[in-house]
Amino acid sequence: LSDGRAIGEIGEHAFLERLCARFGFPADPSGPGRSVLLGVGDDCAIVDPARRPLALTTDALVEGVHFLPGWLSPAEIGVRAVMVSLSDLAAMGATPSYLLAAVVAPNRTPASHLDDLLDACKAASEAAGAALVGGNLTRGDRLSITVTAIGAVAGPWLARSGARPGDRLVVTGTLGGAGAAVACWLAGGEPAPALRDRFARPQARIDAGRTLAAAGAHAAIDLSDGLLADLGHLCAASGVGAHVERESLPRLAEVAALDAAGEDFAANGGEDYELLVALPESLRGRLEDLATDCGVALTEVGRCAPAAEGVHLIDASGRDRRPERRGFDHFAPDRGSDGLPERSIP
Amino acid sequence: LSDGRAIGEIGEHAFLERLCARFGFPADPSGPGRSVLLGVGDDCAIVDPARRPLALTTDALVEGVHFLPGWLSPAEIGVRAVMVSLSDLAAMGATPSYLLAAVVAPNRTPASHLDDLLDACKAASEAAGAALVGGNLTRGDRLSITVTAIGAVAGPWLARSGARPGDRLVVTGTLGGAGAAVACWLAGGEPAPALRDRFARPQARIDAGRTLAAAGAHAAIDLSDGLLADLGHLCAASGVGAHVERESLPRLAEVAALDAAGEDFAANGGEDYELLVALPESLRGRLEDLATDCGVALTEVGRCAPAAEGVHLIDASGRDRRPERRGFDHFAPDRGSDGLPERSIP
Repeated sequence: LSDGRAIGEIGEHAFLERLCARFGFPADPSGPGRSVLLGVGDDCAIVDPARRPLALTTDALVEGVHFLPGWLSPAEIGVRAVMVSLSDLAAMGATPSYLLAAVVAPNRTPASHLDDLLDACKAASEAAGAALVGGNLTRGDRLSITVTAIGAVAGPWLARSGARPGDRLVVTGTLGGAGAAVACWLAGGEPAPALRDRFARPQARIDAGRTLAAAGAHAAIDLSDGLLADLGHLCAASGVGAHVERESLPRLAEVAALDAAGEDFAANGGEDYELLVALPESLRGRLEDLATDCGVALTEVGRCAPAAEGVHLIDASGRDRRPERRGFDHFAPDRGSDGLPERSIP
Repeated sequence: LSDGRAIGEIGEHAFLERLCARFGFPADPSGPGRSVLLGVGDDCAIVDPARRPLALTTDALVEGVHFLPGWLSPAEIGVRAVMVSLSDLAAMGATPSYLLAAVVAPNRTPASHLDDLLDACKAASEAAGAALVGGNLTRGDRLSITVTAIGAVAGPWLARSGARPGDRLVVTGTLGGAGAAVACWLAGGEPAPALRDRFARPQARIDAGRTLAAAGAHAAIDLSDGLLADLGHLCAASGVGAHVERESLPRLAEVAALDAAGEDFAANGGEDYELLVALPESLRGRLEDLATDCGVALTEVGRCAPAAEGVHLIDASGRDRRPERRGFDHFAPDRGSDGLPERSIP
């Protein structure tokens, strides 16, 4: 099937037969598939998870909405789709167990692209400890991939609603890189490799979510819509306000070099798939040790306040610098006709 | 939000906020949501299923591929999307527990249509005993809905691969109604209500799958691609052949009235979401009692044979009447440009 033919020339069933053989069952009993009793190729997969609460999430990546043709390789689309859903598990402090991937693709799609996309899904899934146990393939005008992720919750989970006034707000990794990459693409350029990677290969912060949940974090959300928008969701769910220091937002050197625009990307850019976590004040002294266990930098960016104080982004002089834009909204009235959100271009 | 505005005018977050309030948590503790610890509105749902193997499946319904605009009401699209995935659970003998619904919709979609679609998803899900615990909403050119269903397996499950030579092949309900409805729509007509219902409101055969699995059925598959195509999948997975009697295929009066075309729809039409089950010969005498427990008619349509005999559709005179067409293949090379499979029009 690596002869350059399109999926429309090969046909769904011929493609799936070969895929099932490649993704075959039984899985390696020492790998992520050890609790999979029946894998891909039947009406359902059958799995046998341990007796624990499960975290369930589904998320879609649509060409023309979340990315434009030419930005990502098929493998990167697969990785990104998996990470977007795994990031939701991370935000709950859950451990990935199983994934399902539903792909819609145009007839003209080269079968080798779908092979690459699905192989990357499988590899990214397994690298996170989850077995890719099923999916669906159907034709459509635009490429899209909807990944459902199922994880196990060992102890307390991190809802959005647990933050309290006085909690410290901490983010993993760096912010704004993905937004800067998108802005660069939209301006007709090619983003610097470090920025491109932030968009093309996000890393779901599984270890961080798990570590911080076990340590006693109060609440978490993953940063898909942008820090301020997602902070707004967390604060609304928790019934708190927040003060975030604009200069404290961790940025890659490539984002910091954009000065004010870089700060805007960090505050609003979205698509970074880092975690925003509300920690009780008592954990503040342990941040460095926790970061080691999380496998990623933890940066304190602000604190929660009583709801009446509202949500504020404050600059170095203490002025409120909260921007107008509130992050990514697929159906926002101001959405441009190019199928992507309006963003400021650096 | 029932003011006629499109989803693009309202925005994703405003729509979802209202939806979450309506689909709110905590759920009725005596209903399908009793094991839901955290429902819609967070990064993940958290559920606490009993310690049993789980059946996992995901399936997509895409406008322009699985149905054309004008065929189905928004509520019917929701019901159908849920039933298509529940039917996969039924084919394993699993009991529905949880559903996730990922919707892609154009900006111009009236918000009230999405309300109707999602309300219908929730109602259909709960009627089958499953809690709708999460989902996703994103913009796209075409309406599509991808439903992930999670069910519990109490005893043995029904893989496709367990059929043996000599097994009796039994189908639930009637065949060909959905295919006849599609053909009628494609010919510019409006299908008779009984045919239309077969397409617009399929019934996942949950009780039948569970009953027949417990009774000792050997294998099952749900009939999405058409009897002959799905029989081919079951036979391939089981390593058997089969003889099916064309005249034995159960048909609604409206399908039977189409004579030979009606027989073609029953053999090839697809989309009926009935079950094809391989039963050991020993259960043959219990078919009537089993049908009562299944809540649906069971019709013996043929038997399994050694693989070397192949898969045959036989007419009353014993002649092989296996048609050329082998059911629905989304990417089949002969697919028409209208986005739907070529079908013979009665």
